[in-house]
Amino acid sequence: MTFSDITIHAMAERVITYTGYMARWQPDARERLERAAFDLFVEQGFASTTVPQIAARAGLSTRTFFRHFADKRDALFADEHAVPDQAGRIVAEAPDGITPLQIVASGFDAVAAAQFSREKSYYIARHQIIQSDDGLRERQLHTQAALVEALRSGFVQRGSDPVDALLAAHLTATVFSVSIGRWLSAESTEPLATLLRDTFDRMLRTAAS
Amino acid sequence: MTFSDITIHAMAERVITYTGYMARWQPDARERLERAAFDLFVEQGFASTTVPQIAARAGLSTRTFFRHFADKRDALFADEHAVPDQAGRIVAEAPDGITPLQIVASGFDAVAAAQFSREKSYYIARHQIIQSDDGLRERQLHTQAALVEALRSGFVQRGSDPVDALLAAHLTATVFSVSIGRWLSAESTEPLATLLRDTFDRMLRTAAS
Repeated sequence: MTFSDITIHAMAERVITYTGYMARWQPDARERLERAAFDLFVEQGFASTTVPQIAARAGLSTRTFFRHFADKRDALFADEHAVPDQAGRIVAEAPDGITPLQIVASGFDAVAAAQFSREKSYYIARHQIIQSDDGLRERQLHTQAALVEALRSGFVQRGSDPVDALLAAHLTATVFSVSIGRWLSAESTEPLATLLRDTFDRMLRTAAS
Repeated sequence: MTFSDITIHAMAERVITYTGYMARWQPDARERLERAAFDLFVEQGFASTTVPQIAARAGLSTRTFFRHFADKRDALFADEHAVPDQAGRIVAEAPDGITPLQIVASGFDAVAAAQFSREKSYYIARHQIIQSDDGLRERQLHTQAALVEALRSGFVQRGSDPVDALLAAHLTATVFSVSIGRWLSAESTEPLATLLRDTFDRMLRTAAS
């Protein structure tokens, strides 16, 4: 244990006492922990950040941290299920008689508005944190796999052939990942919803060519 | 250190002496190590297998193992660059005037014949080993990313727009991963090349629908 570990540990202990009181007045512990984790990952890197540091920055105890998250990685994926869940709902609630890709195209505005509503700089910083760590990249790939599975299962429930449903789900995930990559690139100024539509149209043209 | 560790260590040491002589007559050390690693992963699981065990099974020293592979994970991904390399060559050598997806469709037979030439049971067992371990799944995702990058870069060199090139690369990777999944599934009896063509056609129909 180094001197700085001891200091951080002492800080965390001090903060526990303090926030035992604060917690009654601030019900947003989860959001504060997420924010503190994110700020520390940006400032000093994911690998160098400890759970006691995150808790101390949020003014909460490590015990409170572990009531909300399994580990520090978890604090960066708090919205993990939001995109697959919303995509699954859009598919389930789509009118009869339209194809999987027509459903997907109809949902771009809603997904962009609900799931990417923060400052773009937040998503750029988050992307950089994820790229810095094998475990985080693996976790993000699980999230993408969850999107594919939510779509595939939704399409099958609407009566699609299983292979066609899987293909439509993969095509959708491709449109999302390519669009988000374009949106986060340095030169991009277009809104995400515009890029989703443009990427979708290009995907159809590429497949038809 | 447990008793079995000591035994394995002693076995490995004994084998070093033995194979110092054998190595002059058996130049296929790399293949023997790959085979020994694979057999042990199947028999006792990836996590339980150690490098000294692999070396002992192959009748070689741990030092020889580390001349060929960085770690035991590496021994399962010896052909890692084969598919991206072959895909890159097919794109580079394609005649002018045909589209990215026409190039891809023309290469299915060659890729299936060259890269999936072993018994199907080998690929099924390998798939199960990879699914058993986070690090192996991450490594496989890197291989898939390398295929996308080889294709994207090849299409750009032929003059494709960068976004269209990336989309065509992703569509190709989707056709491969869905086809391989179909091929490895219990009920499948079709050759991989047939499934690649069928999945490709379905992907085009899905995109057009």
